[in-house]
Amino acid sequence: MMDLIVMKFGGSSVANTEKILNAANRIIENKKKARRIVVVVSAPGDMTDDLIEKANEITEKPNEREMDMLLATGEQISIALLSMAINNKSHDSISFTGPQAGIYAGYPHTKARITKIMPVKILQALKQNKIVIVAGFQGLNPNEDITTLGRGGSDLTAVALAAALKADLCEIYTDVTGVYTTDPRVCSAATKIDQISYDEMLEMAGSGAQVMQARSIEVAKKFNVIIEVKSSFSKEKGTIISGEVKKMEEVVVSSVTFDRNQVKMSVLDLPDVPGIAAKVFGGLAKENINVDMIIQSSARDGFNDISFTISRTDLKKTLPLLRKLSKKLKAQGVIYDDKVAKVSIVGVGMKSHPGVASDMFNYLSDEGVNIHMISTSEIKISCIINDKNVDKSVKALHSGFKLDK
Amino acid sequence: MMDLIVMKFGGSSVANTEKILNAANRIIENKKKARRIVVVVSAPGDMTDDLIEKANEITEKPNEREMDMLLATGEQISIALLSMAINNKSHDSISFTGPQAGIYAGYPHTKARITKIMPVKILQALKQNKIVIVAGFQGLNPNEDITTLGRGGSDLTAVALAAALKADLCEIYTDVTGVYTTDPRVCSAATKIDQISYDEMLEMAGSGAQVMQARSIEVAKKFNVIIEVKSSFSKEKGTIISGEVKKMEEVVVSSVTFDRNQVKMSVLDLPDVPGIAAKVFGGLAKENINVDMIIQSSARDGFNDISFTISRTDLKKTLPLLRKLSKKLKAQGVIYDDKVAKVSIVGVGMKSHPGVASDMFNYLSDEGVNIHMISTSEIKISCIINDKNVDKSVKALHSGFKLDK
Repeated sequence: MMDLIVMKFGGSSVANTEKILNAANRIIENKKKARRIVVVVSAPGDMTDDLIEKANEITEKPNEREMDMLLATGEQISIALLSMAINNKSHDSISFTGPQAGIYAGYPHTKARITKIMPVKILQALKQNKIVIVAGFQGLNPNEDITTLGRGGSDLTAVALAAALKADLCEIYTDVTGVYTTDPRVCSAATKIDQISYDEMLEMAGSGAQVMQARSIEVAKKFNVIIEVKSSFSKEKGTIISGEVKKMEEVVVSSVTFDRNQVKMSVLDLPDVPGIAAKVFGGLAKENINVDMIIQSSARDGFNDISFTISRTDLKKTLPLLRKLSKKLKAQGVIYDDKVAKVSIVGVGMKSHPGVASDMFNYLSDEGVNIHMISTSEIKISCIINDKNVDKSVKALHSGFKLDK
Repeated sequence: MMDLIVMKFGGSSVANTEKILNAANRIIENKKKARRIVVVVSAPGDMTDDLIEKANEITEKPNEREMDMLLATGEQISIALLSMAINNKSHDSISFTGPQAGIYAGYPHTKARITKIMPVKILQALKQNKIVIVAGFQGLNPNEDITTLGRGGSDLTAVALAAALKADLCEIYTDVTGVYTTDPRVCSAATKIDQISYDEMLEMAGSGAQVMQARSIEVAKKFNVIIEVKSSFSKEKGTIISGEVKKMEEVVVSSVTFDRNQVKMSVLDLPDVPGIAAKVFGGLAKENINVDMIIQSSARDGFNDISFTISRTDLKKTLPLLRKLSKKLKAQGVIYDDKVAKVSIVGVGMKSHPGVASDMFNYLSDEGVNIHMISTSEIKISCIINDKNVDKSVKALHSGFKLDK
């Protein structure tokens, strides 16, 4: 018997009455596994998108404090309905909004960070043997306004609560049965991973895997929260994410990820003077443009090319800015390629296995795939390739590194 | 220039984007009339009903605390969207939930009463020259839970805030242009009343008029809040509700109201012993059954008949209870008639004009309408009649008391 489990249900798991009743059953079953249960819930189904659309009908630029006031209603509906469902099954249950649950957050509105958790009401309710349902994605900011936590906010609420309450386990219920070696829609040989380390999950999240956002994994790693990603609709065991994963034979590569949302930008013939790169990337950072891979060619004749990748969604904003910067810095000009994608391999085993990179390049070249850019970390290697080559590259890497079932 | 106006918009006035933008315009226009504006809003359109339906899909008997958690989201959506709309028109605006606005309430859940108002945040925001938007129908109870205020709760929020903030005026925006001499759907000769007293409005609300609930009028009367009932969709002047209405020639009857939601119940041949009526009505009160008119026939041979009216919605609950009571009290039995309705005339002028009652009975008998029961107050006379006679009775009384346009 565990002491405390935090369970988190995403929007698709509470999208309608049937699914809410299913979630209620899963929660009640867990009372056999743990003495205390805290549940975090997202807004039902598409409700958040519907509310954003309503706001955009009113104005193109909704006030962000009011946007948070609006969006917070989605999770509030979920917690109330889920708590009713559990109460109706003769288990005492109580729901709390993020502010009521003692989740304090900072600024800015619509993407605040959690600053602290004071779960006074949660602990009181648990003491009364109640199943506690908490609204994900929201908290109270220093101005006592409701704020939301941005993308992946409900996962973050769950992991942060699990840390604050010293939970034995944080279960993330979703519509897939766990974390896969790659996206099964692209490579049917993909298999579910039983256990994976925080570091690998972080690299996976950063390289395009959609399961969990990096911010939640970071908090889990920091406070050593053991996570299980599993399906709301099956009893199958999910994927455990934890600090150390011990296996008889260490797997070199644990997953293949990809990200089609990429553009390669190049500034040509920049004068090779100190601080010039800082000027380029400083200009982009000021506009909140996230730069991923960066390559600087070695200087010839006192000039340099700098290439980097950004999200396609940032292209419209980046291009005029970069052209202006290029002119100011007396570069020759700006070119871009928005038909590129990133494929990555992730695995803690890489640290102790030399030659993984060259294996990757070989597998890609065997498929006739040209590599535009390369970046490496301790446990990840990413390549920028033409986006039309993504599917075959993922399949080749998945099979090459022996991840096929 | 007034100092402060409280404006209240009902659900039909914020049912969609177009209507929200219209409300925003009405609010901004009022900035020419008053230095400070506080707005109270209901949930959009049918949202409250939709949420109740969702809850009933989950369980027949939803937990009431969770019901309040659920229902409170409706107003929260309205305030956020309305505040966005105003902000977008370059007027600073801020929204508050009931709890944030400092509206404290008691028990029970789903129909709490307001206990006090501490409008700290409202006053701060007004000082910063912001238009303040407050969620109607909700408050915080002593357990720090969100609670709702039951039927007419948003009007109550508006009137109570107007009292607490010492507003010059409380405008109730709705889909009709004011308070009418009777329901125009029944009597096309109905006319809008320019001014009416709290007492008359109270009697009207109690006798079937749908414009405002008695509880809001009671608070307005107690704190002398001047109310104007008007349309969101027309610039027409509405109806002023205030303490004293001075007119050159006093109108005897100011309105004709009716209520089709009536059942007449009779307990036959009750033994005529002291305290027997208390036993009957005490038993009903314990089950929260509201009894309206009561008639006790004079005793003959030591037996009595007691007749009274209740709401049709309470019939199912009342009948078995009353049959049990009747048996216990050794009465002969219970009969009821659910084909009755109540018509009433209301007017402060009655106090000083004798003969109004006999005029009323004459107008009804001229139409061949039989009267089952009569009850009178200082400024109201009500008759129970067959419900098929409502329309012609209303028309006859409206014309008889010279209310036709």
